[in-house]
Amino acid sequence: MSKYVLKASCPDSKGIVAAVTTMMAANGANVLDLTQHTASDIDVFMLKTLFEAPSPFDRKSFERVFKITADNFKMTWELYDTNRNERVAILVSKTNHCLWELLLKHQDGEIDCEIPLVISNHPDNRGVAEQFKIPFHHIDYKPGKAAAEERIQQLLIDYEINLVVMARFMQILSPEFTRRWKNRVINIHHGFLPSFTGAKPYHQAWHKGVKIIGATAHFANELLDLGPIIAQEVIHVSDLSSINHLVQIGKDVERRTLVQALKLYLNHSVFVYRNRTFILR
Amino acid sequence: MSKYVLKASCPDSKGIVAAVTTMMAANGANVLDLTQHTASDIDVFMLKTLFEAPSPFDRKSFERVFKITADNFKMTWELYDTNRNERVAILVSKTNHCLWELLLKHQDGEIDCEIPLVISNHPDNRGVAEQFKIPFHHIDYKPGKAAAEERIQQLLIDYEINLVVMARFMQILSPEFTRRWKNRVINIHHGFLPSFTGAKPYHQAWHKGVKIIGATAHFANELLDLGPIIAQEVIHVSDLSSINHLVQIGKDVERRTLVQALKLYLNHSVFVYRNRTFILR
Amino acid sequence: MSKYVLKASCPDSKGIVAAVTTMMAANGANVLDLTQHTASDIDVFMLKTLFEAPSPFDRKSFERVFKITADNFKMTWELYDTNRNERVAILVSKTNHCLWELLLKHQDGEIDCEIPLVISNHPDNRGVAEQFKIPFHHIDYKPGKAAAEERIQQLLIDYEINLVVMARFMQILSPEFTRRWKNRVINIHHGFLPSFTGAKPYHQAWHKGVKIIGATAHFANELLDLGPIIAQEVIHVSDLSSINHLVQIGKDVERRTLVQALKLYLNHSVFVYRNRTFILR
Amino acid sequence: MSKYVLKASCPDSKGIVAAVTTMMAANGANVLDLTQHTASDIDVFMLKTLFEAPSPFDRKSFERVFKITADNFKMTWELYDTNRNERVAILVSKTNHCLWELLLKHQDGEIDCEIPLVISNHPDNRGVAEQFKIPFHHIDYKPGKAAAEERIQQLLIDYEINLVVMARFMQILSPEFTRRWKNRVINIHHGFLPSFTGAKPYHQAWHKGVKIIGATAHFANELLDLGPIIAQEVIHVSDLSSINHLVQIGKDVERRTLVQALKLYLNHSVFVYRNRTFILR
Repeated sequence: MSKYVLKASCPDSKGIVAAVTTMMAANGANVLDLTQHTASDIDVFMLKTLFEAPSPFDRKSFERVFKITADNFKMTWELYDTNRNERVAILVSKTNHCLWELLLKHQDGEIDCEIPLVISNHPDNRGVAEQFKIPFHHIDYKPGKAAAEERIQQLLIDYEINLVVMARFMQILSPEFTRRWKNRVINIHHGFLPSFTGAKPYHQAWHKGVKIIGATAHFANELLDLGPIIAQEVIHVSDLSSINHLVQIGKDVERRTLVQALKLYLNHSVFVYRNRTFILR
Repeated sequence: MSKYVLKASCPDSKGIVAAVTTMMAANGANVLDLTQHTASDIDVFMLKTLFEAPSPFDRKSFERVFKITADNFKMTWELYDTNRNERVAILVSKTNHCLWELLLKHQDGEIDCEIPLVISNHPDNRGVAEQFKIPFHHIDYKPGKAAAEERIQQLLIDYEINLVVMARFMQILSPEFTRRWKNRVINIHHGFLPSFTGAKPYHQAWHKGVKIIGATAHFANELLDLGPIIAQEVIHVSDLSSINHLVQIGKDVERRTLVQALKLYLNHSVFVYRNRTFILR
Repeated sequence: MSKYVLKASCPDSKGIVAAVTTMMAANGANVLDLTQHTASDIDVFMLKTLFEAPSPFDRKSFERVFKITADNFKMTWELYDTNRNERVAILVSKTNHCLWELLLKHQDGEIDCEIPLVISNHPDNRGVAEQFKIPFHHIDYKPGKAAAEERIQQLLIDYEINLVVMARFMQILSPEFTRRWKNRVINIHHGFLPSFTGAKPYHQAWHKGVKIIGATAHFANELLDLGPIIAQEVIHVSDLSSINHLVQIGKDVERRTLVQALKLYLNHSVFVYRNRTFILR
Repeated sequence: MSKYVLKASCPDSKGIVAAVTTMMAANGANVLDLTQHTASDIDVFMLKTLFEAPSPFDRKSFERVFKITADNFKMTWELYDTNRNERVAILVSKTNHCLWELLLKHQDGEIDCEIPLVISNHPDNRGVAEQFKIPFHHIDYKPGKAAAEERIQQLLIDYEINLVVMARFMQILSPEFTRRWKNRVINIHHGFLPSFTGAKPYHQAWHKGVKIIGATAHFANELLDLGPIIAQEVIHVSDLSSINHLVQIGKDVERRTLVQALKLYLNHSVFVYRNRTFILR
């Protein structure tokens, strides 16, 4: 039997949960799991439900019927077939602790998606990707960002990619690129945003004398490090740590935060609203 | 309009969420919030929902109708009127950081219940209770535990108490007492259970050289410190700390853990199954 | 026998620890505890040592001798008699969770100083201060900041205050005031600095969708919320929390951070260098 | 110039720091770093210092002179040449997240030692070791523990190993073996000790309903999971997690804790006293 996830959000009003669950029961969908939240500060309702579809399942017809309920509440909604895995491309530069983390956890079955493609602006990590039997493409940025991004875009199409993960990719994506992949590019920033945007966040943190450092996984958009935050992790640091020590400590936080964000995304837990996210587990 | 919380648990099977929400919609109940979880390791389904009742609301009749659905799934269930606050009695001995915490947070509106009664086996904290205009009863344990507990029991009845919170109460309640108040006595133990049961947990922890200490809020039952755990908190400690320092550090962890457990209870988030709890927020 | 703390910092060079400990031994000072750190990123050496002075102890003469070693290494240094408690004034407005925390922990013996004075720009917390038998002075800000600060300054002198703690004091101190009390005014900011300076940090945090909120205790100076950071604490928050909920959760983090900063200060653990601190425990 | 670490512990008494630093200065040793602690609950003094030796350095003669001071205070002490790296052997079974972590962080320069040898009771991880060009030896346990341990012991001798790390090694070492390698075998236990010793700690934790799980790195001795604790880490878990989910979450905690313990060991920070450790950073 097939399982589907339905995500929906709309202005808050009475009776949404009841309307959705009633509609689903009436159409043979067996609700296995339902989470919902109303952000009362902005009067926005969000709902995520996992259901077993009747067999055979006419998705088109289900969508047509659901649309009536959805339109009634002015819903934005999406339906996901849990049998179809997301296809994820990894962008990486030279630093590879995040790349290793993603590939090892993927191999271990902890990250549930396809990873058919690794792209880098340096040739260094070819060996890492290929050890996991994943095609590696080196894209030279010397001819310019526009040309490089065009090649990346072509690869993403060729490999039928749905999601891009920047695992410490040291090139800034153009606004055109992030707009095309809106809310489908996850970046890991090695600072606790919104503090310490931009370059060398650990240097900034050290000179400011903060007592806690962190990492932030967020959707990349034209605001650079200020796109919607998906996950954040922090760690207390001693003032006895040098900048280099912070860089080293930070690596663990970065890879952990990035993996967490990716899992939340793959689990359809991430709702985006006005440049912030709401995580519904 | 009145709001109610319905809690239910039963062996897992198909269609429970749909059955409950359909039944509620059919009876004019407007679901505002619904959380459910299936503990797949033991095949137990749990559900908590907050709903607006139709006005006027015939609770008896609603319960009669719901019983049909409930019996169908072999449910254990409870219905709570959110307009009726729990009435909580605090038991305390001499150490009073937990007492202060409960009373200050209650005064601040953070803990949502009535606190009509403080009971102690020592007279010392009369001033603390009375400053918050809460009656304080000193129960002398010299005549023996049985006599003392009888007086406590009478006070709990007189004050129409629903829940007892042991805020560092240094007397062990008898099995008769905890059976009568099953899952309605919350105790704070100053150790990370199940390690360090019994007396002087910080001394035990120090001599064992653990690097993290903790506190555990749990339902008191005849297993003493081994009743169902509601909340736990921990803190890293340096090996440079003395035992006395651990005791001091631990106080913050204890009061935080106890408040957290009390709030979860008052929020109807605590499900108990086979001597463990499941927290559904 | 008297115990003293010596704090010193200077450009890094060889042989500082040896020179200091040799000089102390030669002058009858028995080193009980010594911590030192070299911040290699800026080549600054810091040292803190607790020692038992010989009896009788001629402080003046000890300082004269030590000055030779100190000048040799271009040291900045201070000597503290541990028998003389710091005298701390608390500034507070209406919100009083930090005030309660300081006074209860002081009463409990956890905070080791004198608190002879509470000052407020509102009359509301008189009862809280007086319950601990601490004089409370209401300073009206209506006649203007200059006049109010003049009265505050006079009170600090009258009560022989060494340190000022702003326990959620909702007035900005003038640059003149903070310059006069340089590195002797501790403020608690209810945000994880340097993010979210200024007003309503929890509102800012919520709208940004951060997954972790925090509080920062820092020395107040003319940079407002950007003075040297002494202590920071954070807590993970769910996206299901409303702004009001963040405010409530944050209170625990604020009071904990402020107490921690005050204890570090009283323990002579705080070194300030170029607008950041180094904590040597 | 050579740097040495001196570690010493003894019954507490006056003047130890002064005596040691004076002796060192007199013998041309330049103290770079000094940390000391007195465990006042048991009156034990511990000291760790990093110093630059004069050049040329006659270690034997230095030890002879230091012995006079040491004997005076009844010290236990050790001297380490920081130019000589520890040689570490890894024992592993099938589960390899800890093995990967150690090898990747070693390759990345974060773990500062030699790793000349990986030993396993299964052939599965040969590829992992060999990818890092580290010899892998499969020791068959079928002929019995005694024979297997004899072969392991021979390998440790052949490779001049100083420290053994059990990176999820699923065989219990005999008391003879751990006695021979006293305080030189680090094990990672996947539970927050002293809770949940023995097999399947995550299953135990789930059925107990604890709200926090953890991992413990400790010296292996004849007390099995009750040897001296070096490092512990924990993570909050939701009651919505299945046992399998706990196992997965726990892996990150385990590898982090093991790496932390190994670094503390290599950094000469671990003092052992009466079956507990004291960490002096």
